[in-house]
Amino acid sequence: MQTLSQFQDLFYKYLADNQFEKSPTELYEPVRYILNLGGKRMRPLLALMAHSVFSDDFEKSMPAAFAVEVFHNFTLVHDDIMDEAPLRRGKPTIHEHFSQDHAILSGDVMLIYAYEYLRYVEKKELLGELLALFNKTAIEVCEGQQNDMNFEKRDDVTLDEYLKMIEFKTAVLLGCSLEMGARIGGASPEDAKHLYEFGRNVGLAFQMQDDLLDTYGDPEKFGKKVGGDIIQNKKTYLVLRALELGTDADKKELNDLMQTFTNSKEEEDVKIEKVRGIFNRLNVKKYAEELKNAYQKTAFDHLAAVDASDDRKQILRKTAEDLLVREV
Amino acid sequence: MQTLSQFQDLFYKYLADNQFEKSPTELYEPVRYILNLGGKRMRPLLALMAHSVFSDDFEKSMPAAFAVEVFHNFTLVHDDIMDEAPLRRGKPTIHEHFSQDHAILSGDVMLIYAYEYLRYVEKKELLGELLALFNKTAIEVCEGQQNDMNFEKRDDVTLDEYLKMIEFKTAVLLGCSLEMGARIGGASPEDAKHLYEFGRNVGLAFQMQDDLLDTYGDPEKFGKKVGGDIIQNKKTYLVLRALELGTDADKKELNDLMQTFTNSKEEEDVKIEKVRGIFNRLNVKKYAEELKNAYQKTAFDHLAAVDASDDRKQILRKTAEDLLVREV
Repeated sequence: MQTLSQFQDLFYKYLADNQFEKSPTELYEPVRYILNLGGKRMRPLLALMAHSVFSDDFEKSMPAAFAVEVFHNFTLVHDDIMDEAPLRRGKPTIHEHFSQDHAILSGDVMLIYAYEYLRYVEKKELLGELLALFNKTAIEVCEGQQNDMNFEKRDDVTLDEYLKMIEFKTAVLLGCSLEMGARIGGASPEDAKHLYEFGRNVGLAFQMQDDLLDTYGDPEKFGKKVGGDIIQNKKTYLVLRALELGTDADKKELNDLMQTFTNSKEEEDVKIEKVRGIFNRLNVKKYAEELKNAYQKTAFDHLAAVDASDDRKQILRKTAEDLLVREV
Repeated sequence: MQTLSQFQDLFYKYLADNQFEKSPTELYEPVRYILNLGGKRMRPLLALMAHSVFSDDFEKSMPAAFAVEVFHNFTLVHDDIMDEAPLRRGKPTIHEHFSQDHAILSGDVMLIYAYEYLRYVEKKELLGELLALFNKTAIEVCEGQQNDMNFEKRDDVTLDEYLKMIEFKTAVLLGCSLEMGARIGGASPEDAKHLYEFGRNVGLAFQMQDDLLDTYGDPEKFGKKVGGDIIQNKKTYLVLRALELGTDADKKELNDLMQTFTNSKEEEDVKIEKVRGIFNRLNVKKYAEELKNAYQKTAFDHLAAVDASDDRKQILRKTAEDLLVREV
């Protein structure tokens, strides 16, 4: 069995060899900047791992894996403009560090380069299928981002709409990465689809975990500020579930709190405590955990259904477990 | 021989059948808006015409032709943000009519849909080749736009740099449209490349004509305000050639004029007359006309070299002539 670091080494070597040292500098410097900011590189690693379930020449999935990473970073660059985000992975965003024009145009050329790397797949007979999957996924990611923005302005977002939004905005690209790697590695369409579903469900479970950790996480272990979603009035699963379960009085209290803005650490802590109080009263933590576990179980069922040895599948199982076992 | 209106009818029927009636509305309404604003539809029509040189089933190039039109409109949407343009074809631009977020994200999804339509080509064995050509072209278009923005801030732009910029920003997409249509229509790689060069050179000649008309056009016939480039201090071929040919005194006068901003119709007219005076003194109109004619001759030489009957090629010849015969 390969180890995580073997996949990582391959990715970082490929990244070092594909540094967009091109002209005009103004167009490509932001591309190098964002691609070298770091991150877990989860999507390309999942593509390589999926390939390795079916054959050992997983370096042949590297161009497709890189395509997904370039695409993912393109979405970060453009989303950061729309979200007016000052920081990304602790560093200034492209529209802050360079300019908004740079963020728009360098993002565009990254999207095009994602297709350029996709084209490098050796098995040309797969190109049409990979392109179809990648386009479908990319369109869904845009639709997810649009709905995320729409939801900020709406006060009638349903749980189903929320789950569809996070599925499109984040989960489908994990599925796409896995399915592409699997197919390039020689998987049957059925096995590749099982890995797509594995990735999609891992993504959904991860997002549930993220919603939970933001409100209930250990401040020592959680990377971001605990309660950040509450302060920003984000309509997470917890909020939407509470609005669904609560009495009219609960709903009014929560809706009123979600329209307040805090001006000090003290006000923030009071608001977080009040919202958490409503959540606790309505038991939404339990519902969120149950849903996370359901997604997680579905994910592992799909992995189990893949026609390959447990040994071959071990790296994917372990990677998903590492992503999802963070205790709340 | 097919007539122009046959190609137009096919395009407009396909456009009517592909109206992006999808959800979320906020994402797709701007796409419908820009695609229905009009325009000459030159790129998709050239693709269909190029196909028709080699076979009669030119409707089979319609998805690729539409891909190019969708891509072209994506570039307009994002360029208009960067250029802070209020109007496009006489109507408010997307970032003005909807919002900047809409312009960014709807532009992104258009770029993805361009690849989705490209995928619909019937001859799947051509997909890799079409994708390579389309990616190369799309990357060049981004590089051209970046250089166009760079040039606004530089005072040492050379003629060669300017010509490369307009080649990338506008001419290569005409070439790409023709080459794709030709290959789908069954052209040999050589003939398709001749049509690429035909399109690229028509594009360059057209841009030279545009630079000339802006300064020397008949106000009655020219669609835009004559002298607009001068008022906006645009570094056109005429300006760069004048800076190359002029004495130090000419250069100083022109550079000084290019840093003035006008506040009334009278001031504008004075500025236009002064700049035109420098151009006339240095004979730059003649040089621009010669260059335009050289591009035009190269274009028609490439068309002549295509291994097909004059009758088959007549529609392309006539279309290019109609584009390029506007007397200055």
